[in-house]
Amino acid sequence: MNKFLLLTIMLIATLGISHAQELKSPNGNMAVRFSLQPDGTPIYSLTYKGKVVIKPSKLGLELKNDKKSLLNSFNIVDAKKSSFDETWQPVWGEVKSIRNHYNELVVTLNQKEADRQIIIRFRLFNDGLGFRYEFPAQKNLTYFVIKEERTQFAMAENHTAYWIAGDYDTQEYDYTTSKLSEIRGIMAKAVTENLSQTPFSPTGVQTSLMMKTADGLYINLHEAALIDYACMHLNLDDKNMVFESWLTPDAQGDKGYIQTPSSSPWRTIIVSSDARDILASKITYNLNEPSKIKDTSWIKPTKYVGVWWEMITGQSTWAYTDEYPTVQLGVTDYAQAKPNNKHGANTANVKKYIDFAAKHGFDAVLVEGWNVGWEDWFGHSKDYVFDFVTPYPDFDVPGIREYAQSKGIKMIMHHETSSSVRNYERHLDKAYQFMKDNGYDAVKSGYVGDILPRGENHYSQWIVNHYQYALEKAADYKIMLNAHEAIRPTGIARTYPNLIGNEAARGTEYQAFGGSKPNHVAVLPFTRLIGGPMDYTPGIFEMDLSKISPSNNSHVNSTIANQLALYLTIYSPLQMAADLPENYDRFPDAFQFIKDVAVDWDDSKYLEGEPGEYVTVARKAKNTGQWFLGSVGGNNARTSIIKFDFLDSRKTYVATIYADAKEAHYKTNPQAYTIRKVVVNNKSKLTQFVAPGGGYAISFVEADKTQTKGLPRL
Amino acid sequence: MNKFLLLTIMLIATLGISHAQELKSPNGNMAVRFSLQPDGTPIYSLTYKGKVVIKPSKLGLELKNDKKSLLNSFNIVDAKKSSFDETWQPVWGEVKSIRNHYNELVVTLNQKEADRQIIIRFRLFNDGLGFRYEFPAQKNLTYFVIKEERTQFAMAENHTAYWIAGDYDTQEYDYTTSKLSEIRGIMAKAVTENLSQTPFSPTGVQTSLMMKTADGLYINLHEAALIDYACMHLNLDDKNMVFESWLTPDAQGDKGYIQTPSSSPWRTIIVSSDARDILASKITYNLNEPSKIKDTSWIKPTKYVGVWWEMITGQSTWAYTDEYPTVQLGVTDYAQAKPNNKHGANTANVKKYIDFAAKHGFDAVLVEGWNVGWEDWFGHSKDYVFDFVTPYPDFDVPGIREYAQSKGIKMIMHHETSSSVRNYERHLDKAYQFMKDNGYDAVKSGYVGDILPRGENHYSQWIVNHYQYALEKAADYKIMLNAHEAIRPTGIARTYPNLIGNEAARGTEYQAFGGSKPNHVAVLPFTRLIGGPMDYTPGIFEMDLSKISPSNNSHVNSTIANQLALYLTIYSPLQMAADLPENYDRFPDAFQFIKDVAVDWDDSKYLEGEPGEYVTVARKAKNTGQWFLGSVGGNNARTSIIKFDFLDSRKTYVATIYADAKEAHYKTNPQAYTIRKVVVNNKSKLTQFVAPGGGYAISFVEADKTQTKGLPRL
Repeated sequence: MNKFLLLTIMLIATLGISHAQELKSPNGNMAVRFSLQPDGTPIYSLTYKGKVVIKPSKLGLELKNDKKSLLNSFNIVDAKKSSFDETWQPVWGEVKSIRNHYNELVVTLNQKEADRQIIIRFRLFNDGLGFRYEFPAQKNLTYFVIKEERTQFAMAENHTAYWIAGDYDTQEYDYTTSKLSEIRGIMAKAVTENLSQTPFSPTGVQTSLMMKTADGLYINLHEAALIDYACMHLNLDDKNMVFESWLTPDAQGDKGYIQTPSSSPWRTIIVSSDARDILASKITYNLNEPSKIKDTSWIKPTKYVGVWWEMITGQSTWAYTDEYPTVQLGVTDYAQAKPNNKHGANTANVKKYIDFAAKHGFDAVLVEGWNVGWEDWFGHSKDYVFDFVTPYPDFDVPGIREYAQSKGIKMIMHHETSSSVRNYERHLDKAYQFMKDNGYDAVKSGYVGDILPRGENHYSQWIVNHYQYALEKAADYKIMLNAHEAIRPTGIARTYPNLIGNEAARGTEYQAFGGSKPNHVAVLPFTRLIGGPMDYTPGIFEMDLSKISPSNNSHVNSTIANQLALYLTIYSPLQMAADLPENYDRFPDAFQFIKDVAVDWDDSKYLEGEPGEYVTVARKAKNTGQWFLGSVGGNNARTSIIKFDFLDSRKTYVATIYADAKEAHYKTNPQAYTIRKVVVNNKSKLTQFVAPGGGYAISFVEADKTQTKGLPRL
Repeated sequence: MNKFLLLTIMLIATLGISHAQELKSPNGNMAVRFSLQPDGTPIYSLTYKGKVVIKPSKLGLELKNDKKSLLNSFNIVDAKKSSFDETWQPVWGEVKSIRNHYNELVVTLNQKEADRQIIIRFRLFNDGLGFRYEFPAQKNLTYFVIKEERTQFAMAENHTAYWIAGDYDTQEYDYTTSKLSEIRGIMAKAVTENLSQTPFSPTGVQTSLMMKTADGLYINLHEAALIDYACMHLNLDDKNMVFESWLTPDAQGDKGYIQTPSSSPWRTIIVSSDARDILASKITYNLNEPSKIKDTSWIKPTKYVGVWWEMITGQSTWAYTDEYPTVQLGVTDYAQAKPNNKHGANTANVKKYIDFAAKHGFDAVLVEGWNVGWEDWFGHSKDYVFDFVTPYPDFDVPGIREYAQSKGIKMIMHHETSSSVRNYERHLDKAYQFMKDNGYDAVKSGYVGDILPRGENHYSQWIVNHYQYALEKAADYKIMLNAHEAIRPTGIARTYPNLIGNEAARGTEYQAFGGSKPNHVAVLPFTRLIGGPMDYTPGIFEMDLSKISPSNNSHVNSTIANQLALYLTIYSPLQMAADLPENYDRFPDAFQFIKDVAVDWDDSKYLEGEPGEYVTVARKAKNTGQWFLGSVGGNNARTSIIKFDFLDSRKTYVATIYADAKEAHYKTNPQAYTIRKVVVNNKSKLTQFVAPGGGYAISFVEADKTQTKGLPRL
């Protein structure tokens, strides 16, 4: 990574210990105030342009078997302020370079009686606050168990929230928009069925949590650098509108095992009066450590197709045979098994996808269901469920390797763990080596179902530690990782940029499991994407899934134009064209946008943004400098009015606009789209209709590189 | 392994389903009877020469979320009898070849309503019964969770038992001899302190459980082939004197996760009117599968010394430094740390042990505390506690490797896991490879403290699975394994003969932790050793441990002659001379026996045996054919009278008898021994005094190979 670093220590001052501490953001718009209550409880508050964002809120941790805990009886022994300003270049991303600019306040607190210290470190950026607990090495605080982290976020009013239910095992819920006070009443309905789920409280919600105040302030709560610590949820005291951290417990109900020196993840509060600033914020990455991977040349943004949607919809199967009530690896003789003749990952079918990828300029092909064990992989807490190296008889590993190579296509490996985490770790080295031996540089991993060891949760410290283990080991093998059902990202991709994707939210697959809300994709950028890219797998053109699989009555609640826009609005360096090749063949003109769109960017401009309503973003492709634009709407039709002032003022462009037709509707008429070409420059303004569940996408080509004759000017 | 197999199917008969089934042992002395109660509950009973061993006792399993369970409503659909007779040769052992001779009854049971079947397989040997549950592959029984195994062992009377408290996490208790009815009253006292312990019931005891009936029958209850199943304890209904199986639960309280086809471990009942038959029984091995290791040439019985007792007694330390409150691997800079100057595993000290081993003809040297992390290894549930490859600064891995090689000494690796099982598995491949790279062919592993993942138990299915994983992986690397604090052995060494040792009971170390009962070693052969060899680490010559470590007030409750006898009475292909070299230098004549004694045998003759009282065994060394004899007593003095009729009738021998002096006593005079040489033949008879906590040991040399002049004849 070619990193540009500018470090300025502007001020280091040891301040008096008796008074409250105040820290301002570099631009002076935000201020955090820290003080102690009379009983020695730490308190902080946050304002934005004088408006209250966080009312005085307690900080601290409740420890197991420790009466005093780390909650009160503190005095301030030291408080230091400093400033930091650097610019760094991500390996991949929405922008070419990221400025990491903050003022810092480091408060050292002492519990006199116990003779032990903690540090609370605040970093105040122009667009938000990050703070964390630090536990220095010391005689009287070596090991401790967290009963609960007691970090409060006291809201000033009964804000509007865009939330999903707090859950130890799934993030795959549809979002609800409601007042904070309404969460309790809605909760039961919000907890929809999932293959593994553990909701914990009628007012518990997940981060990243997006909120909007009555006077138009946007507030986002999340965490950064979640490493070897339990994932934080937020539990709402809905009498006082105070959120409190609620960590994910282990099988014993304990919430963290800490050895000093160490620190908690950062707790982040992104704030702006302009919703687009939330989308553009880089706080989460900035609070993570720089890349630990020195040579990142092998990490490559990727556009791919895959043998996947046909199984998700029910057209084909992951399993090879239906013959046995159960299977055992190394025992079941697949060579003798009767094929079910619906197995998707067969060599001929995979080659068809490779041909399609090569023909249309994709980088890679993902194949799920290639390896033995799928017959009874789910729901049995089966320990030795997959070995990750043994293909089904009809999946020719070397043949596919050679065929893909001959076509210039990379293969993407699939490792479904069935949440049998120990089994996966036991096989990880061999599985990764098998990948390298067979030309796979990227893996999609999955954690469907309840975790083994039993009683553990998807987001507990023990399992968070596992995801990180798999990520770091992948880096050792120069493997890019795209983990599904794993912990939601918290900017760790800055440190391990081989984490090129995550699911960790309700993805496109749910459109085949009964459907998602039409405005779901207008919430995700404000919530899930705050932590890092999502492998949302867009690009569905056939919304009536019974046409693919007669017994599937699901409908994809989205228009084709909306699907195209997702390649921009759901940022990811890993983008799939998820639909079946034959569906793309039916709409070659719309498919052209998916073929054209880039996956890595030098710049991004958020033009419109309102949670659950719309997101419009223009992005400038890395290397080519080509601009693309995507806009998604929400549940209702709208008119998008945007300026093209991001374009080079010296140039003229032909914009190809893929938009909803007037009669388009996510439910009744999702395939009604129009494609028009117009000549534009940076003075042009677009007024564009967006259907319910719709959107539009634009590719810009410089006028001197294409035909402009006869095209209207915008 | 040169295996000799003789298989005879004598009778396969499908019997009527309405009547009870009876099966006799090959010699007709034992009979097992199987039937169904009117409600379809399976029942078995066992007799020995007409005496009741097991009264009618229920069989079955209670399942989780399954009302009917596998307890009743069965009918017999099939019952087959057959016979089996083979002789096989163990890779190492007490005898050159083992006969596996039994009659078998296989009963297939059906639950009509649930339409599902189980099989109960009985194997009746001349010296006992083994039976197990088998769960065939079938449509209506694929996966299930065991709530409890409900196997009963109904005793005929209030027998005498030699027991330790049932516990999910430790086996390291002193044995208690009491009536079954007295267990409840004694339990609290029997549960002595341990670094990890989870007793579960006032009448729960461990297997192997030894009992004696009022009319002189010896009964031993244990299990064989415990693989991927929870370890069985026995819980006593002390009103009716009925034991019932009590499996070790996981963190959720569940006791087993089964996928069909599979089977339970064997439940074994060894029976004889002669206690020596219990000691000589090979049922446990016979019920295990033949060796899965094809080339066993690298598995070598070993006699070793080690840098160990000096740490156990407190003279030196495992840790290198006392400077830090905690340490972190990869973070703590040991090169800069202040040494505590008590670190045992320093290069100079290790070389001293290598010199001693070479001088006295030992095979190997064990070194504990060689690797970084010991400063805070225990009691913190520390995940990343050891990496198993990084030495302390004062332990020169290549220097020691070369020095040992130059002296013809093998090094034995030590892997203390601190029960951080996931961490160990993550490092296992590298740790084993590090061993091979540095000339280590054997490893002593340890599982001290509470298990990680937290809530799991040392003997639950999940962790039993781990021990097996480590064993099989060791076999892949051609590494011999000696696991301490792991699951008690159940004859698995037949299948994986690289399992050359286990602790899994109260070993010699407890003599340095306050002492063990003087008769402990006269119980172990009847209990712990039923499942396989024990790395008891005998050979302590200095019983007053304050002479080694002034602050240690422990006393080793044993005489020197008793210590010598242990090399015979506690069978193991891995034997340590555990005391400090300087203590052996003080008693070179007694030490000569330890130098001479073999560790692998062509034959063994149990001459005397009574649980808790005495064990006397003669063994004939492999290759040399030399005889050795050992005898341990119990709490009180006794006179041992034995015949030497095991000797070759055509030969004369010089027997060197290492015995307690008249005034010897484990407590007051443990170092009082006599050594005398006598000329003997197979008509000779020995009458030998044994002190309290004492014993004697004999080495036999053929007369034509030594000086006999002037020696008395026995």
